[in-house]
Amino acid sequence: MAPERVLSIQSHVVFGYVGGKAAVFPLQCLGYDVDIAELRTHKVVNTVNFSNHAGYGRSGGSRTTAAELNSIFESMEQNELLMPSRLLTGYIPGAEALSAVEKLATKLKHAKPSLTYLLDPVMGDAGRLYVAADVIPVYQDMLPLATIITPNWFEAEVLTGIELKDFPSLRKALSILHLKYHVPNVVITSILMKPWLIAALPPSIRPPDDDHLLCITSSTTATHPTSRSDFESCPSIVHAQCVPTIPGYFSGVGDLFSALLLAHFHPGRPPTTSDTTPLSEAVFQALAKTHTLLQLTHEQAMSLPEEERLATDDELDSVDPLRRTRRMRGRELALIQGQDIIRGSALDDTRSLVAWDGFWSQ
Amino acid sequence: MAPERVLSIQSHVVFGYVGGKAAVFPLQCLGYDVDIAELRTHKVVNTVNFSNHAGYGRSGGSRTTAAELNSIFESMEQNELLMPSRLLTGYIPGAEALSAVEKLATKLKHAKPSLTYLLDPVMGDAGRLYVAADVIPVYQDMLPLATIITPNWFEAEVLTGIELKDFPSLRKALSILHLKYHVPNVVITSILMKPWLIAALPPSIRPPDDDHLLCITSSTTATHPTSRSDFESCPSIVHAQCVPTIPGYFSGVGDLFSALLLAHFHPGRPPTTSDTTPLSEAVFQALAKTHTLLQLTHEQAMSLPEEERLATDDELDSVDPLRRTRRMRGRELALIQGQDIIRGSALDDTRSLVAWDGFWSQ
Repeated sequence: MAPERVLSIQSHVVFGYVGGKAAVFPLQCLGYDVDIAELRTHKVVNTVNFSNHAGYGRSGGSRTTAAELNSIFESMEQNELLMPSRLLTGYIPGAEALSAVEKLATKLKHAKPSLTYLLDPVMGDAGRLYVAADVIPVYQDMLPLATIITPNWFEAEVLTGIELKDFPSLRKALSILHLKYHVPNVVITSILMKPWLIAALPPSIRPPDDDHLLCITSSTTATHPTSRSDFESCPSIVHAQCVPTIPGYFSGVGDLFSALLLAHFHPGRPPTTSDTTPLSEAVFQALAKTHTLLQLTHEQAMSLPEEERLATDDELDSVDPLRRTRRMRGRELALIQGQDIIRGSALDDTRSLVAWDGFWSQ
Repeated sequence: MAPERVLSIQSHVVFGYVGGKAAVFPLQCLGYDVDIAELRTHKVVNTVNFSNHAGYGRSGGSRTTAAELNSIFESMEQNELLMPSRLLTGYIPGAEALSAVEKLATKLKHAKPSLTYLLDPVMGDAGRLYVAADVIPVYQDMLPLATIITPNWFEAEVLTGIELKDFPSLRKALSILHLKYHVPNVVITSILMKPWLIAALPPSIRPPDDDHLLCITSSTTATHPTSRSDFESCPSIVHAQCVPTIPGYFSGVGDLFSALLLAHFHPGRPPTTSDTTPLSEAVFQALAKTHTLLQLTHEQAMSLPEEERLATDDELDSVDPLRRTRRMRGRELALIQGQDIIRGSALDDTRSLVAWDGFWSQ
């Protein structure tokens, strides 16, 4: 049987695992044919998250234009090669290129309403945008096309215009994504464990210590709400899980997570238990594998010579930009060494996502 | 332990498995970190072998320039990211881009003399060049940098200027590659079973029927010749194997074969038996896996609906270019479904390469 086909539209770097380089290999390992439409971003190494840093001015290549993207998509269509059953989009630099992707996604969704589209609205982190602000309305326009979105905490704020400062604002943001933007599956990642959040969490989800981040999944695809008023008071089934943080910064983690999530998402299969949704099961797999791969990456980084793992120091880094490059090089995701983790289905050091029953009535 | 690192410089297509798309995934499956420097070639699908065909004018994208390649390599160097232990180059369109690759290969080889460089001089097949003729002298200049080259029959003729029309000319061509161009490991693929060749073959290598191609490996790396005169009368250890052909045309087979060969080439390991060389052992693995993957691809293509596997017909194809696209689409290498074949080390339906003892004295 021919594998399912994913069209992946991501940035490309020559060295290391970020963007397409973090997403494609896991999808292939998990049995998907991947059509790879790449965006050159002027960058040879991962610089997306540090584009203002002096050390990253030194990059080669040219940037993919919207006209080029359109031309690629048109050529695929003319040759009857635009036939994915799944679509994955990640970091796309600039509103023009993003609009070309929107046009394509619209066309694909129209031609095949069952298209599973995972849209990762990569825009920023920790209060800082690393794309131009004009991409925000384009992403908002695109949300109704998505089957799954995977914003981090900050991106969820940017998309909804809601500052996530207390539990009601979290509910408000989620309901905007479901009801205003019609996204059936929302995954919010990397949520900091603020006191109000810990207080709101059911005891079974509470982390044992502060070194955890929360991941929330919210899904309207299950046959849960029975009437319109039900739906408005309880628009979705919510699950959550806290994940221990691993010290230091790793690039490409979001891209890896989204690819694994898309690979494990099987909306047609009945859930394993009454307590899960196709989304929560896929997120469980994706979180477990991502975390295990990060642990492996961390262990390998720790075994490097000291000059390859000097701690972040903005002052020293700005004097010697190679300090940062060396550190990043030692912390590239260990996807190749960890490919058995990607392929494995049983991961024993993590718990399933927990259903957050009182989320909407709390 | 960190994996070995391959820098792969290949063409990129969005859809299907040719160039980098045929080479990178197998290398990754076999445990290599792959730095991917890609060449855009105006093409979305594989059109390398049919560039004059009307059906393939319809392609999108832009072409990578030599300046862009230089800029990418310089940026990698400045960031201390140019650190491969192996280099793989395949189809590179145009003498200017190829010269940029030559400059890089020279630099890498100078910095690390142990660099294993597999150069696949992709220029043409069956008597026809599909690159501009000005790449030929650039490839000839590059040959001394290579650890392994993998020309097909026609490319070996083009590189050496020797028409392979009888057994002495085959010997002459091989000795030119070893002695004039100093290539330690030569693999000539897809050799047609001409009567003179069958007559020259040791009985143990002779094919049972006409539907076979020969692969010859020739290696000077073993400690075989003991003096200069020995070396000149017997410049290398030669092995050969015939491979059954599979009907129809498949794209990307050479790219897959070269990647598997590079992955399995371990010059530092002692050969398994006195009868083999590191080259012949690697070629055995690469041939066996390529052949098994082709069989799988062929079986899958045969199971497609009839309109997806219409036979080649130049007249009908030129009226309806999609005929060819559909046929090619159904014959894309089954790398994803066959990934266990790539990973497997034991393949039982093939024989080892046979040492061709009398090759130089015949």
